[in-house]
Amino acid sequence: MARPSQPKLSIPAIAKAALKLVDAQGDFTLPQLAKALKVSASSLYNHVQGRDEIIELMRGQAMQVISLPHLEPEKWQESVQLIATEYWASYSKHPRLIPLMTSYTVRDSTTLRVYDALAEAFAAAGFAPKQRLQAITIIDSFILGSALDAAAPAEVWLADEQASPEFKAALESGQNTEDRARQTFELGLEIILDGLARTVPTTRA
Amino acid sequence: MARPSQPKLSIPAIAKAALKLVDAQGDFTLPQLAKALKVSASSLYNHVQGRDEIIELMRGQAMQVISLPHLEPEKWQESVQLIATEYWASYSKHPRLIPLMTSYTVRDSTTLRVYDALAEAFAAAGFAPKQRLQAITIIDSFILGSALDAAAPAEVWLADEQASPEFKAALESGQNTEDRARQTFELGLEIILDGLARTVPTTRA
Repeated sequence: MARPSQPKLSIPAIAKAALKLVDAQGDFTLPQLAKALKVSASSLYNHVQGRDEIIELMRGQAMQVISLPHLEPEKWQESVQLIATEYWASYSKHPRLIPLMTSYTVRDSTTLRVYDALAEAFAAAGFAPKQRLQAITIIDSFILGSALDAAAPAEVWLADEQASPEFKAALESGQNTEDRARQTFELGLEIILDGLARTVPTTRA
Repeated sequence: MARPSQPKLSIPAIAKAALKLVDAQGDFTLPQLAKALKVSASSLYNHVQGRDEIIELMRGQAMQVISLPHLEPEKWQESVQLIATEYWASYSKHPRLIPLMTSYTVRDSTTLRVYDALAEAFAAAGFAPKQRLQAITIIDSFILGSALDAAAPAEVWLADEQASPEFKAALESGQNTEDRARQTFELGLEIILDGLARTVPTTRA
């Protein structure tokens, strides 16, 4: 048995280690990743082609927890809501992955299946292709921004002396409420889905 | 004249150099920042107390370009729209600052004035304090998510062979359109503002 102490490399292990680095420092390099996995850079290259592929692996890792519901066309809003909520919950745990993965073209197949499902739901709602792409993008942007909000500190804003009474009252009313981020995400998602439904002449919210 | 070759340190110079590091690598350390400014770490500490303060400086740097409109209460949607659009445009240029700054409590006074203005606009619309905080957060999340979308590559998704016809048609309809991100942001913002207006019984969209 040669080198029994060397850990076995696998695609999930690489994705997990890269995600851990991104969670901690906002990015990763291949030498750092090799070090974290206790392997040489050349061993890494036996499994992945490079940085781009590792980003897609991390994306897949974050997306694979989403369960895709069976689409009932008349309940398209429910489908989008279920997918969006799981998507939000998963990225809330990895906020620093967000700007990294939005700066690369989506190629990961697990992730593409999520967008397939969203496209099918919006098509069922009656959205033409261009409006469907806009609807997907609006939902996507809101999910990612809300995931960052969910990862924010309990005190998002610290008002100073000049703060307006309107802002101070808003902060005092609910900034430190438990489940603040989730409630706000759910309300925003509902508003967006209802609003999107209104833009399609053939369906009603 | 002692040490004439040493550049003068200033708060704006520190903010600018830190932002440059974050744009490039997603984060910064104080030693890296000192090196970029060609000063010692102790010189840096003569101007800033530490990492937290530098993050607030970067936030202020990104927010200072926003011009705050004079609020006409019956045109509150217009005010929010103007602020949101400039906010989005500024963060589109610094996507990697986004998760860094959402993970720290907002203390920067330039930034707090932007939230004052949003709170005043939503108060004018008739939102009670708690709903006002939710409205601010929903808009904020959508702006930041959309700024990430604006910074994404022209080809956001690369469909694979299994991709659904609904998704493929959506991609073909407009993925590489000029101004795609701006148009989608504007549509989403309109939908959210109209939807929020509907949640206030005393006003109409």
